[in-house]
Formats: sequence, structure tokens, C-alpha cells
Amino acid sequence: MKDYVIGIDIGGTFTKFGFVDREGNIYGEGSSPTDPYDKVEDYIENLVKELKKAEEELEGPAKILGVGIGAPNANFHKGTIENATNLKWKGVIPFAEMMNKHYDVPVRITNDANAAALGEKVYGGGQGMDNFIMITLGTGLGSGIIVNGDLVYGHDGFAGELGHTNVEENGRKCGCGNHGCLETYVSAPGIKRTVFELLAHDSRGSELVNYTFDELDSEMIYNAAQKEDPVALKAFDITGKILARKLADSVAHTSPKAIFLFGGLAKAGDYILKPTKQYLEEYVMGIFRDKVDIVPSQLMGRNAAVLGSSSLIWKDIA
Amino acid sequence: MKDYVIGIDIGGTFTKFGFVDREGNIYGEGSSPTDPYDKVEDYIENLVKELKKAEEELEGPAKILGVGIGAPNANFHKGTIENATNLKWKGVIPFAEMMNKHYDVPVRITNDANAAALGEKVYGGGQGMDNFIMITLGTGLGSGIIVNGDLVYGHDGFAGELGHTNVEENGRKCGCGNHGCLETYVSAPGIKRTVFELLAHDSRGSELVNYTFDELDSEMIYNAAQKEDPVALKAFDITGKILARKLADSVAHTSPKAIFLFGGLAKAGDYILKPTKQYLEEYVMGIFRDKVDIVPSQLMGRNAAVLGSSSLIWKDIA
Repeated sequence: MKDYVIGIDIGGTFTKFGFVDREGNIYGEGSSPTDPYDKVEDYIENLVKELKKAEEELEGPAKILGVGIGAPNANFHKGTIENATNLKWKGVIPFAEMMNKHYDVPVRITNDANAAALGEKVYGGGQGMDNFIMITLGTGLGSGIIVNGDLVYGHDGFAGELGHTNVEENGRKCGCGNHGCLETYVSAPGIKRTVFELLAHDSRGSELVNYTFDELDSEMIYNAAQKEDPVALKAFDITGKILARKLADSVAHTSPKAIFLFGGLAKAGDYILKPTKQYLEEYVMGIFRDKVDIVPSQLMGRNAAVLGSSSLIWKDIA
Repeated sequence: MKDYVIGIDIGGTFTKFGFVDREGNIYGEGSSPTDPYDKVEDYIENLVKELKKAEEELEGPAKILGVGIGAPNANFHKGTIENATNLKWKGVIPFAEMMNKHYDVPVRITNDANAAALGEKVYGGGQGMDNFIMITLGTGLGSGIIVNGDLVYGHDGFAGELGHTNVEENGRKCGCGNHGCLETYVSAPGIKRTVFELLAHDSRGSELVNYTFDELDSEMIYNAAQKEDPVALKAFDITGKILARKLADSVAHTSPKAIFLFGGLAKAGDYILKPTKQYLEEYVMGIFRDKVDIVPSQLMGRNAAVLGSSSLIWKDIA
């Protein structure tokens, strides 16, 4: 009998899962579609069917110790998914309770960036670290804050939304309804918006003039930067600068030992890390200078979503 | 034998102290000068002498359970005071250790705003609350953040410096060396600076034209606001707006149940509370709307500094 925790990551299109052992090895990785199901009951029925199938295919008998779930707008305190804009199931869904009917073990749920932060703590660069921040840079900017060795859930269970701190009053329109949110500048779509602003200002010598707004993605910007495209290089510098200015505020809040960057945009490596580090030292209050490491997540290249979700359970029993 | 904790608040000019019982009653209140002493050893010798004298005058025999200290640039983890600009003792001072030679009980130290936050938790409006933020508005803007029921000290022991989050790049010069820090806008000197900006723009109908920069203080601005002085009213509105914009960021970090305002500027009551509340709801991410209370500290009018310092000890044994 081998111990596993089921890690589940619910995305708008797909749901990924895996059976994670104490050491962070993932077995029986699989996925199940999210978007065909208008009713969450039908979605869960299919997900559980896929999970049972994958469990049967594991080597030897499995003991499931718990189920950890990462999902958009997930409320850790209540075990609910609440009004997630990129999921079809509206209102407040008692997701943990619904999963509990199929798995009579602890079921915990939080948003994907919080789960990633726990993954970093249990399996990545945050091991043994009591205060750090995880930033996930994808289509948005997600974050998870670890304080005194624990995730910050806040009063309502939704803490850690650094993507929606304010960079500029009346700044760029954000999907959340507000203007000027950090993720409208620092994310894959954010750097694209910056490129278009820069092209408007001075497009000379840039190959990025050849893409429509819909075509351009952050990988193309990264590729251009590697060829020293002036607009691409400037876009990374500006992106790092804006990120650094807001991270300086975050440092003033929780004084982390490290800030881990994860996700698509973080794959650009030094193009994003270097300006972020440099400007952070400039912006941060003197008392915090030369104290905070800005480093790539050690979960990069691993199934961070599943590892992170499983950490919701493993963190207390590993 | 009655149990007490000694609460000490070290300011640049004076040090206040008191003997705090389990219920938060303060006995033997006194003070001892801070600034005449170039050497911290001499300062402590005099402070202890004053403390012993006050202890002798308490009714009945006292059992001292611990010593809690609030001081500028205090490091909770190390028990040190480090390079405090408004104290004469430079470098890193092992203050807790030095006090321990006189009192063989737990001695804990943190900055005054952190101590105030603990005071709010143990004796004020934060009782039973696991996530809240305390903002102290005086000559600067101090803050203490409570997360998961505990104070956020951060990796280095200096967390909770919201006064030095950034409002505006290249904004007002701050005493910390940076530009645009929140406390240069939101504090007693901050609102004065705003008044002077407003007077420069349009001084019509304002009695505040009669004060020099050195004369004007936040109480005069409050008095003018009560007489519906247009510049004073506008200054409070702007101050609340700037505070709200940065508190919206703080809410995105730790999702507090409440934010308590304490100190001189908070005494202006609704003049500062109303705009702060109103703009916070406007600025905050939708998910946090109508969830966070902005309220006056329940330590107002009490010896918050001494109560707060004593809470460093009482919080674990009360």
C-alpha cells in the first residue's frame, strides 16, 4: 500500500490531475475536459471516473490520503469556487464537499497561484523558508504569499491577489473591471500591450512590426529580444521595472526572504529577472535593500499545478 | 502577588512605561528621558532605576511576567534596535539582551506600530480577529499586519512598513531616502504638504493662508475643516483617497477583516475615515468589495504604546 495525495488543477479548458507521493513524484498523470460541462455535477462525475481509471493503473495498491485542488476563485476557508469568470458554473459551488462524496478523505481547495506557492514550499525552492512570495506569470499575474510558514488566505479566503494591485490610476483596463492592475502590465498579454505602446512611440529597427495584436505572443517577444530587437528589449525592461515597483510594496508588507517567478513569462529568464532585480533594489526601502532574492521557481518544467495542489495536503503530513 | 507585564515605549525624546495587568489596566505609569543619553548603557541604567521606583510604589507585591518594548527599527527576531535614525545609539543594539540582565523574564521588542497592532488584538477591536491591519498616523505612517492570528514580522523581522510603499514615482521626498512614500502624503506632515500644494493651486476662501509651513499642523487643518474651509476639506479628501488607493493594495495582499486607524490624524474622525472608506470600495478588486471595515482604533485615548508593548508578552499567556 503506497500513500498518495491526488492533486487536481482546474483550468477553464482542461483539468489536470496526478497522484503525488511523499517525495513529490507524480504518477498516473491525466486530464479531463472542463469546458464541455455546463453542470458541475456532470463535470465531477466524469473527473472522478477518470481519476478511478488512473488509480487502477497505478503500480500496486494506493492509499489516498487526501485531495488537493487548485481552481480559479477558490475559497480555502469554505471549500468553494465562487463566481469564477472562466468557468461555466456560476454562483458559489461547494466543490470540496462535492468531491468529499467520492473521496472520504480531507479535500482542500485554493486558487492555482496559492497552490503553486505551497508547491514551492513543500517541493521547491521554498523548502525550509518561512516567508516568501510566489508570482505566477501567465495570461494573468497570480500570487501566493507565505508568512510565518503558512499561506496567507486572509479573512475571506481570497488573499494574495497581487495581480490586482494598482500600478497607475486610470491605467490599462483589466479583466477584473478595474483599471491599472499590475497584471495588465506584467503578464503575457501585459508585455504585448507594452510592445504595442512602444511600437507606437518608435518602431524603428523592430521585427515586431510584422505581427497583429492577435498574433503577437510573449514567446515571439522573447525570441526578438534574443536577437537584440530594441522594442523587445525595452518591453522586458519596462515590464521588470513595473513588477519591481510593485514588489517593493510587497516587500514592505511581508518582508520575504525570496520572491519566486513562475510561468510563461518567467521562462524568459534574465530578460525579466535582471531588470526586476535591479529596479527592486532601487525602489525598495533602505532597510530591505540587498535582502530579497528574485529567483526562478524550482517547479519550472515540473507539473507545478498538480504538485502545488497536492501540497495542500502534504504540507501538513509530509 | 499580582501579575504584571512591563510595557515600554521608546520614543526619540521620551520613553513611556507602565505595569499592565492581564485585563489591560495600566499601573505605575511613568516616563524617562531618552535623548540625554549618548550611551545606551546609561539610558538603560536610568530607565531601570525609574522602573524599580515605580514598581515599589505599586499596591502590593508585583510579579513581573515579562517585558515588552516598542522601539523604532526594532528587530523582533534578534531582539535588537538597528540604526534607528531618531535615536542617538547607532549600529545594532542588543536591547532585549541588555534588558534581560535586569529582568530575568522574557523580553520582546518590536517597532511601535507592530506593538500597537498587537495591542489592538489583545485589548482593542482586533480581539478574536485573525486578519487585520493597524495603521498609525502620526509624524509618519506606521503599520502592523496581523495574518493567521499572528503579527507579520517577515524574514528579517522588519515587515509591515506600509508607510514606505510607493504612491508616485519621483513623488515627495521621504525621510527614508526614497521618493513618493505613502507617509509623505498620509501623516500629519503629509496632509500639511498637501495643504500647501492646494494653496498654491487655489487659496480662495481658506484661512490656512495665515500659517507658515512651520506653524501649520494637522490639528489646525482639522479645525479649519470643521469650519468648512475648502482647502482643509479637500486636503482630507485627497489624503483619504491616497490612503485608500494604497490600502486597496494591502487588501489584495492579506485580505484583512478590518483596518484600524490610530493616532493624531485619525482623531479627525469622519474627515479622514469617510473618504478613505468611500475610495477604498472604489479602488479595491471586486472580490474584496464591501468586505473590509475601516474603523478607528479602540486604543484611541488609552496608553496604546504601553498597552501594545505589553501585548508582546500577554498575547501568549493571556
